[in-house]
Amino acid sequence: MTDKTQAERREAGKDVLRSLRGGDIDADATAEAMEANLGPLGSYVIDFGLGDVWTRPGLPRRERSLIVITMLTTLNQLNQLRSHVGGGLNHGLTRIEIEEVFVQLAGYAGFPRAIDGMNTAREAFLEAEGVEELLPSPPAARKSDD
Amino acid sequence: MTDKTQAERREAGKDVLRSLRGGDIDADATAEAMEANLGPLGSYVIDFGLGDVWTRPGLPRRERSLIVITMLTTLNQLNQLRSHVGGGLNHGLTRIEIEEVFVQLAGYAGFPRAIDGMNTAREAFLEAEGVEELLPSPPAARKSDD
Amino acid sequence: MTDKTQAERREAGKDVLRSLRGGDIDADATAEAMEANLGPLGSYVIDFGLGDVWTRPGLPRRERSLIVITMLTTLNQLNQLRSHVGGGLNHGLTRIEIEEVFVQLAGYAGFPRAIDGMNTAREAFLEAEGVEELLPSPPAARKSDD
Amino acid sequence: MTDKTQAERREAGKDVLRSLRGGDIDADATAEAMEANLGPLGSYVIDFGLGDVWTRPGLPRRERSLIVITMLTTLNQLNQLRSHVGGGLNHGLTRIEIEEVFVQLAGYAGFPRAIDGMNTAREAFLEAEGVEELLPSPPAARKSDD
Amino acid sequence: MTDKTQAERREAGKDVLRSLRGGDIDADATAEAMEANLGPLGSYVIDFGLGDVWTRPGLPRRERSLIVITMLTTLNQLNQLRSHVGGGLNHGLTRIEIEEVFVQLAGYAGFPRAIDGMNTAREAFLEAEGVEELLPSPPAARKSDD
Amino acid sequence: MTDKTQAERREAGKDVLRSLRGGDIDADATAEAMEANLGPLGSYVIDFGLGDVWTRPGLPRRERSLIVITMLTTLNQLNQLRSHVGGGLNHGLTRIEIEEVFVQLAGYAGFPRAIDGMNTAREAFLEAEGVEELLPSPPAARKSDD
Repeated sequence: MTDKTQAERREAGKDVLRSLRGGDIDADATAEAMEANLGPLGSYVIDFGLGDVWTRPGLPRRERSLIVITMLTTLNQLNQLRSHVGGGLNHGLTRIEIEEVFVQLAGYAGFPRAIDGMNTAREAFLEAEGVEELLPSPPAARKSDD
Repeated sequence: MTDKTQAERREAGKDVLRSLRGGDIDADATAEAMEANLGPLGSYVIDFGLGDVWTRPGLPRRERSLIVITMLTTLNQLNQLRSHVGGGLNHGLTRIEIEEVFVQLAGYAGFPRAIDGMNTAREAFLEAEGVEELLPSPPAARKSDD
Repeated sequence: MTDKTQAERREAGKDVLRSLRGGDIDADATAEAMEANLGPLGSYVIDFGLGDVWTRPGLPRRERSLIVITMLTTLNQLNQLRSHVGGGLNHGLTRIEIEEVFVQLAGYAGFPRAIDGMNTAREAFLEAEGVEELLPSPPAARKSDD
Repeated sequence: MTDKTQAERREAGKDVLRSLRGGDIDADATAEAMEANLGPLGSYVIDFGLGDVWTRPGLPRRERSLIVITMLTTLNQLNQLRSHVGGGLNHGLTRIEIEEVFVQLAGYAGFPRAIDGMNTAREAFLEAEGVEELLPSPPAARKSDD
Repeated sequence: MTDKTQAERREAGKDVLRSLRGGDIDADATAEAMEANLGPLGSYVIDFGLGDVWTRPGLPRRERSLIVITMLTTLNQLNQLRSHVGGGLNHGLTRIEIEEVFVQLAGYAGFPRAIDGMNTAREAFLEAEGVEELLPSPPAARKSDD
Repeated sequence: MTDKTQAERREAGKDVLRSLRGGDIDADATAEAMEANLGPLGSYVIDFGLGDVWTRPGLPRRERSLIVITMLTTLNQLNQLRSHVGGGLNHGLTRIEIEEVFVQLAGYAGFPRAIDGMNTAREAFLEAEGVEELLPSPPAARKSDD
C-alpha cells in the first residue's frame, strides 16, 4: 500500500469536493477559499476529511453521504447538513432516500432532530431542483376512514 | 383495553393539537399541513407522538408539558420549545412555573442551555400575552446592600 | 426578601438532602462526605444546587423531581438518575408516573435514551421496594388478536 | 394505501426482530420479554419503531442498519449499538463496511465516539464469529519508510 | 477561609463582568440588565457563575477563558461563545491561541462543531479589531507542489 | 513551511505518545497496538490527531491537555478522560488545576458532567500517585458557622 504525499492527499480532497458539489466547480478556488476562511481547519478538512477518509474503499460515496447526513442531523448541525444533502443528491441518493433517513432517525435521536433535518433537506431540494415549491412527499400509509 | 385504529389514533392526535394550540384551531387543516410539510414524519407525529403518547393516562397534560419543555431546552431545540411554551400555558402552567423549569435546569444541563430556554420562553410569553414588553420576573432573593 | 448567609444556604441544602433521601439520614455526614469526595464541587452542589435552587417556591419538590429525572435521562447520566428516581419516590411521585416520563421522552430524545432510563428506574424501584422482582408494568393498550 | 391494524403492525415488528436477530428466534417470546421489561416502551418499540418504520419501502434494511449504527455511535449508546452491529451483519453488511462507518464518523462526531464504536463493534464481531480473537483490520494505507 | 455574603459575591461577579467585557463598562447597569432579562437565572449567573467560580484561585482568568471557549464550542452554544471570545481576548488570549482551540477540538468533538466555533470567533475578532476584513490565518503547513 | 511525509507525521505522533504517557514507554509498540485494535482509526489518531494537531505551535502541550480534558468531560467520554488526566499531569498540570477544570465546567455543561469528571480524575490521581487514598481537596471557602 502506498501512503500519499500531502500533494496527493490535496488532489484526492479536491476530487471529493467535485463529486460533492457536482458540476464544474473550480476545486482549486474552493479549496483556497476554505483555507482562507478557516485557516488550519480548512487544510485538515480537505486533506484529512475529504482526501484521506472520503476516498477510502470499503463504502461507496453514496453510502458515505447517507452516513454523514445521519450524523449531521443527529448533531443538529443544520448548515453543514444542507450542504451535504446536495452532496448526497450528487452522489446518487434520491430525494425519497434522503427523506427516509429522517424518518428512520426519529425513533433513535428524537422527532425534534428529525424534523429539523427534514425541513433543512426540503430547502436543499428546492435549491437543487430550482423550483419554488416541492411536491409533497406521501404521508405514512393511511386508508380512508371507516 | 382496546387498541385504536389509525382513524382513532388520528382523532386522539387532533385532540392534543387542540389542547396544545388552544382556542378554535382547525385541527384537520393543521394535521394536513403537518403532513404536507413533513411527509411521513408528520403522520407519525400526529398518530404516535400526539395520539398514542400524549393522551395516555398516568400523567396529566400539564405535567407532560413540563417534561417536554425540559427536554427541548436540554436538547437546545428552540423552535419547538417556543411552540411548547405556548402549549404549556394552554395546559395550565403559569409563566412563573415555566420560568422555574429553566432555573432548575441550569445546574443539571448548564446555564447556556437554561439561558437560551429562558430567552425563548420570554418571546413566547410576549406572543401569548399580546404585549410588547414583559414585566420582569423577580431576581433571586436579595437583601439590600450592607 | 432576604438573602441567605452561607450557613443558611447550607441548612437549606441539607433539608433537601433529607427530603431526597428520605428516612433519617444524617445530613451533616452526607454533606461532609460529598465535600470530601468532590471538593469544591460538593460545596456548590449542597449550597447552590440544593440550597438555593431546590428550595425555591414556584414549583413543588415533586415537580422538580419530574424535571430532574427528565434531564438526567436526556443527558444519559444514569448514575445520578438512579439516585433521583429514589428521590422522586420520596417526593411523592409514583412508579407509574416516573415510568411515564420515559414513555413521554422517547419521541423527543429518542428510544435509546428512554430505554436506558426505564432500565435504570427499574433497578431503583427494586431497591426502594426491597424486592427481587418487579411486577411488570402494563404494555401499551392492545386488544386481543384478530 | 392501507393502514395497518395493531395486530398487523405487531406482525411487521416481529418480522424485523427476526431479520435483526437472524436464525430461528422465537419472535413472540422476544416481543413478550421486551414488553415485560420495558412496559409501554416495549410495545412502542415493536409496533412503531420496528413495525412501522423499519418495514417502510424507500431504503432496504441493510441501509437502515448503516443509519442506525451511525446514530447509536454518535449518541454513544453502546449497548444498543452492540446489538445493532449484529443486526447489521444479519442484514448483509460486512465487517469491513461496519468498521468503515466508524472511520467516516471520526471527523464528524469526533474520534472518542468513533473509537467507542469501533471497540463495541469488535466485541460484537467476536460474538458473531464465535472466536476469541479477531484478525486485525488493515491500518490506513502506509508505505515503507523512506 | 471566609465565606462571602451575597453582597460580596455580587461585587466579585461584577469584577469578572469588568474583566470579561474590558474597558469601562458600567457593571451595575450590566448586572441589572441581566437580572431584568433573565430573572433568577441572571442573579445566579452573576453571584454563582461569575462571583463564586470565576474568581477562584487555582487557574488564572486567561485559562478559564480557554476552558469556557472550549465548552461553548463543544456544546454548539454560539451566542455565548461569541461573547466569550471577546472575553478571552480581554483576559490575555491572542487570536492565534483562540483559533488553536478550534483546531485542537476538531478531532475530539468533530469538525462541524470546530468550524462553527472558528466562524463565530472570526465574527468576534472583526468586532474586537474594528475592521471589515481579517487577515487570514496561515493554513496548516504545506510545501509548494511537486 | 514544509509539509511532512507520513513517516514524519508518524514520528511526531509517537513523540506526543511519549509526552502523554510519560516515562520510557515503547512508542513503536504502543502505536502498533493502537493500529491492531482500531485499524484505520488507530492510524489516523497517531498521524493526524497526535502527529499533526498536538505538535502544532500556538499552544503548549500543557494547555492542549486543559482543552482536551474539558472536551472529554463535556462529552462524558470517561475512559479517554481518565487517560488524558494522566497525560495532563505529565504535561505539567497540577492536581489542583485539573480539578479546577471540573469546577469551571459545572455551570456551563452541568454538575452531572462535572461530577463524573471529578470522580474519573480522582481515579487517575490515585493511579498516578500510587496511593490508595487521596488527601481531600479543600471545599469551597466557608467560614465557621454563626
